Amino acid sequence: MWKGLKECFTIVKTDPDVRCVILAGRGRIFTAGLDLKQAQSEGLVSDDKADIARIGYYHRIKVLELQDCISAIEQCDKPVIALIHSGCFGAGVDLATACDIRFCTQDAFFTVKEVDIGIAADVGTLQRLPKVVGNDSWVRDLAYTARKAGADEALKFGLVSKVFENREEGLAKSIGVASEIASKSPVAVIGTKHVLNFSRDHSVREGLEYNALWSALMHHTEDIPKAVMSFMTKKKPIFSKL
Amino acid sequence: MWKGLKECFTIVKTDPDVRCVILAGRGRIFTAGLDLKQAQSEGLVSDDKADIARIGYYHRIKVLELQDCISAIEQCDKPVIALIHSGCFGAGVDLATACDIRFCTQDAFFTVKEVDIGIAADVGTLQRLPKVVGNDSWVRDLAYTARKAGADEALKFGLVSKVFENREEGLAKSIGVASEIASKSPVAVIGTKHVLNFSRDHSVREGLEYNALWSALMHHTEDIPKAVMSFMTKKKPIFSKL
Amino acid sequence: MWKGLKECFTIVKTDPDVRCVILAGRGRIFTAGLDLKQAQSEGLVSDDKADIARIGYYHRIKVLELQDCISAIEQCDKPVIALIHSGCFGAGVDLATACDIRFCTQDAFFTVKEVDIGIAADVGTLQRLPKVVGNDSWVRDLAYTARKAGADEALKFGLVSKVFENREEGLAKSIGVASEIASKSPVAVIGTKHVLNFSRDHSVREGLEYNALWSALMHHTEDIPKAVMSFMTKKKPIFSKL
Amino acid sequence: MWKGLKECFTIVKTDPDVRCVILAGRGRIFTAGLDLKQAQSEGLVSDDKADIARIGYYHRIKVLELQDCISAIEQCDKPVIALIHSGCFGAGVDLATACDIRFCTQDAFFTVKEVDIGIAADVGTLQRLPKVVGNDSWVRDLAYTARKAGADEALKFGLVSKVFENREEGLAKSIGVASEIASKSPVAVIGTKHVLNFSRDHSVREGLEYNALWSALMHHTEDIPKAVMSFMTKKKPIFSKL
Amino acid sequence: MWKGLKECFTIVKTDPDVRCVILAGRGRIFTAGLDLKQAQSEGLVSDDKADIARIGYYHRIKVLELQDCISAIEQCDKPVIALIHSGCFGAGVDLATACDIRFCTQDAFFTVKEVDIGIAADVGTLQRLPKVVGNDSWVRDLAYTARKAGADEALKFGLVSKVFENREEGLAKSIGVASEIASKSPVAVIGTKHVLNFSRDHSVREGLEYNALWSALMHHTEDIPKAVMSFMTKKKPIFSKL
Amino acid sequence: MWKGLKECFTIVKTDPDVRCVILAGRGRIFTAGLDLKQAQSEGLVSDDKADIARIGYYHRIKVLELQDCISAIEQCDKPVIALIHSGCFGAGVDLATACDIRFCTQDAFFTVKEVDIGIAADVGTLQRLPKVVGNDSWVRDLAYTARKAGADEALKFGLVSKVFENREEGLAKSIGVASEIASKSPVAVIGTKHVLNFSRDHSVREGLEYNALWSALMHHTEDIPKAVMSFMTKKKPIFSKL
Repeated sequence: MWKGLKECFTIVKTDPDVRCVILAGRGRIFTAGLDLKQAQSEGLVSDDKADIARIGYYHRIKVLELQDCISAIEQCDKPVIALIHSGCFGAGVDLATACDIRFCTQDAFFTVKEVDIGIAADVGTLQRLPKVVGNDSWVRDLAYTARKAGADEALKFGLVSKVFENREEGLAKSIGVASEIASKSPVAVIGTKHVLNFSRDHSVREGLEYNALWSALMHHTEDIPKAVMSFMTKKKPIFSKL
Repeated sequence: MWKGLKECFTIVKTDPDVRCVILAGRGRIFTAGLDLKQAQSEGLVSDDKADIARIGYYHRIKVLELQDCISAIEQCDKPVIALIHSGCFGAGVDLATACDIRFCTQDAFFTVKEVDIGIAADVGTLQRLPKVVGNDSWVRDLAYTARKAGADEALKFGLVSKVFENREEGLAKSIGVASEIASKSPVAVIGTKHVLNFSRDHSVREGLEYNALWSALMHHTEDIPKAVMSFMTKKKPIFSKL
Repeated sequence: MWKGLKECFTIVKTDPDVRCVILAGRGRIFTAGLDLKQAQSEGLVSDDKADIARIGYYHRIKVLELQDCISAIEQCDKPVIALIHSGCFGAGVDLATACDIRFCTQDAFFTVKEVDIGIAADVGTLQRLPKVVGNDSWVRDLAYTARKAGADEALKFGLVSKVFENREEGLAKSIGVASEIASKSPVAVIGTKHVLNFSRDHSVREGLEYNALWSALMHHTEDIPKAVMSFMTKKKPIFSKL
Repeated sequence: MWKGLKECFTIVKTDPDVRCVILAGRGRIFTAGLDLKQAQSEGLVSDDKADIARIGYYHRIKVLELQDCISAIEQCDKPVIALIHSGCFGAGVDLATACDIRFCTQDAFFTVKEVDIGIAADVGTLQRLPKVVGNDSWVRDLAYTARKAGADEALKFGLVSKVFENREEGLAKSIGVASEIASKSPVAVIGTKHVLNFSRDHSVREGLEYNALWSALMHHTEDIPKAVMSFMTKKKPIFSKL
Repeated sequence: MWKGLKECFTIVKTDPDVRCVILAGRGRIFTAGLDLKQAQSEGLVSDDKADIARIGYYHRIKVLELQDCISAIEQCDKPVIALIHSGCFGAGVDLATACDIRFCTQDAFFTVKEVDIGIAADVGTLQRLPKVVGNDSWVRDLAYTARKAGADEALKFGLVSKVFENREEGLAKSIGVASEIASKSPVAVIGTKHVLNFSRDHSVREGLEYNALWSALMHHTEDIPKAVMSFMTKKKPIFSKL
Repeated sequence: MWKGLKECFTIVKTDPDVRCVILAGRGRIFTAGLDLKQAQSEGLVSDDKADIARIGYYHRIKVLELQDCISAIEQCDKPVIALIHSGCFGAGVDLATACDIRFCTQDAFFTVKEVDIGIAADVGTLQRLPKVVGNDSWVRDLAYTARKAGADEALKFGLVSKVFENREEGLAKSIGVASEIASKSPVAVIGTKHVLNFSRDHSVREGLEYNALWSALMHHTEDIPKAVMSFMTKKKPIFSKL
């Protein structure tokens, strides 16, 4: 499933037909997180018979690979909307925070579950959660206690930006937002995501410099005259695929 | 107007008479953002006749120049209060997020309009907005859809810190805050802004080290004994101009 | 007291018996901040008789030492819960923002008091406050005006994550949270804090890489099989001291 | 060939049988650099019919992929010795500077050829060459003029560390060095390369911190007691594969 | 003269007729460095009558302005060859290290003179000298003692890349190199300088990413087919001005 | 001895009587490096009985402490001249590269010995050696093979800047250089070292900005008028202690 996730978003990145993605769960809950049994069988939760340095060397590579699977969402340059319903445990939070927009249902709850299996979260939550949320005290409360935070709390403290009655309404509204995004210039939209991500990890000055170079390339697009024309004629523009 | 903005804040930076600035709109709306016609005439929205590498080289420099106009607000070291009323479109958000304090009126609304003209915002919004706001999901929702966000939403998600009934009340209250700031030690106030900006773009440790050096210079000020004395005598201190 | 603070958290760091700390005031207020008289006697608020470069050189070192006292809280790797009641002035905010979780009582108020003594805050507030709070406009309003912000405002804008009726309730609830944290795997908890702090100051990618190396070491712990076992048997695990 | 390069070093990274690599040319020259015809057919040297922003978006991804092929050498963690004979043009310099140790023959010459095909080198030379060489004036002389630099010049200015009579002697000596390296503890050797690379791109302090965490894991190796024992008994130790 | 320097290189940056610059002295020596009398009259070497914090605030701005004058050389994106003859004192070293290529005459000598007037060099030497030279021990020897280093020493330790008999030969050879550079694609040459400078200040990975974006724009140039064609027809290409 | 080293340079930092330090060995060789027996007794070369995560947590702290002992040389702000004679093994290279100026005797040899005890060097060599030397290929050759490099090689490749006949001559000449440094303005000298170290680890721009702030403080020194006066009167100035 990890590899599937990566493969999927690697395809999404260069598939001209895709302009926006909605990531939702189909089961009873959004996700139960890491599958402990699989993790054990793959040696992620290691026993310690052989030389620890050697085991550790390969283990580090394996963790990096798992991280890459989730980071593929961030790197696909196309907006990803996560719709979370019911339980979102452990790796689910790593997953959700790698998305761009987080909506949830009234019955959703989030739990940074990793301390409960004896580890520090290591596929993204500790890096991304504090950067997407406006209350660090709350982030640490969740991360140290592994307690559940419901939809209202998630909205209040900044983890999601909208709460819907249920999964159906959530899906309908997510599709509405996704359609809106898909109707925009894809050059503009992927540029916005790409530069937002670059700028999150750099100083304002460095973000601006990268942005200027990006513009120097991307302003050579037919989408600008199209958009401007549509703005003046009040007709909805139709943009070519990426 | 871009150049005027830069000139203005360059003067403000070293004009001892200025201690705090209020940036407010005087028209029907705060700002409609980039003037598309002027941009076209200046080649910012380029046609593609000549060698693209050469056009792009100069285009990048032009974008950097526009960015500098807005960054001048940040670099003037004196607090700037933005009072936004009614519409704040595109470049208006770049402008507002470069200010220190954002107040708005009840009828204000914000829209990261750039995707609607086929571009990724490139004069500051993508760098500063996520660093001044506590809900990244909301930031991206706005940036990808170009939808309007009203005053209450702006307050709830962290873009402004106060909402006023109308422009008059807003101005009166902004002047109140500005006067309060102007009554403080200018050495202390500009140091606070300067170090806040430095620290936003650095690790905590690097921010602290820069801060210590700043203090080693700035603690040699008459404002400290003045302030301490006033603290003890309960008399309002009067600080020299910068 | 500064040195005591540092010493205390240096001990906490390697004392296996400590798993979580609650930092609360015992007096009428949480803290009045820097003791002006002591600061003067130690030359932190300097007179200017001798060579300024030489004075400044040593002054910088002294400020760095004070900063280190507060940073010791951050570097102790064990979660620190600050419970703030009544007044929290100046250095108190530097202190509180170096903690992990901030709770306060209904009568608490916060004031970034430094501009009122003629200086820019320099022992942590300007570095940490904007990174723990979700509204930069509010942060700067506080920092430039030195005005008081009450408990509700602190909660709304992201400085604290819970407000309690009074100090007694606050202590009881803080002890509850601390006990919960102390019952978890200490390997997992200190790792979570350590990696959160590292990741705050680095790009997502760099945070992930450090995290992977951390995991490669820390997954070699008996706490994981213990935790997993307890998860399956539904019995509360008991983890060894660190 | 680019993909083959990446594949090869990806395998090398986790193949326990490989401890050190020698990269040498087998033809008349070391390498003629980028194959212009293939580049054109793959659209790397683009014509400009369609939308430039869209072309540019995919072109950037393609360049990143080529870069990754060369960076695979750096990331394989096992020392790579480049033995350069005769001509080393363009991409050959990108390749050579991604290796750890550079030896060359008396008839070798290097040319940063990219300006001669109208581009700035973009698969590593501009990043790595100045960091492996001790005379930036020389680096820029080469990069702006595309002139040839012979073996003696390369040695004098720091691009290679040894010059051999001819390819045969070079190979023999390279194999000597590689054998020496292969006889050491693989845990120690890969750690040395890994940390050298990390530290090149970070401040001394950050490099030290990462190094300390690396040691905390890697010192748990049987290679240390083995090495120490061998040191005392004066018997050559035999280390397990990685 | 400082302002003239900045103005000159700001013009050079966007003057299509300029492709390469030679910076040489016309007097008895290359430069005597900072003019102490002028510096004093402009308050750079300050007396200490008024409030030190206020003086210091403006002094810092003034130093930044002087630094900008020298950094203009680096930021003009066109290669600058410095030809140093006879004495090169203090600010002369700041100047020379901001250039791309450093040649000197047999009678040249360099002295980081600043400690001899009671200051740490502050317009570039301490930042750039160690990054252009391959022997840090030598750099510090020069910087702490202010001793003279002659042409041979400068060549041996990496400060210059060629030494000429005298100023005439130096000029002739510099013009030769400059002409060679000017005959190349200007898109390729400025890109090479621009990316070298960016990469010097970033990790290899960040340099590569910026480089890929740069290429995605700049590969859309007519200079590439021109260069490739010339390569095949063996006729010297003629590139348009930038 | 590690602790003594740290203590010594911590004292040196604020002892006004010390202006420059010479670090030389008094025994048969400069240093044999880490004392394996002591390291074992202190658990640095760990056995693996207990919980590895817990052992590793403390081990990391211990390595950081050792690193701090050596970094104290760098942080003391006063120039340190290392005079290396005969053997300089392992930790000796960490030590020497933390010094400012490296001289050696004709019989000196250097060996990055760590791989021979099964570890990657971790107290500074891997961070500092490549930044003080102008040939990265040579650095890696030494680090992977643990082979000896003699005085001439060390000079040629940039590790030392002077080679003396023997220890007596070396000492005499080192004292000469140290005396020269000690005769300069201490404000200028420590500033030079401090800013060189800061700038090594930052971009040129960041180095310049820090430098400007440093100057804004340090130019308020009596040493400048003294130095200028002496310059005009040709009389050797006498500067106050720091």
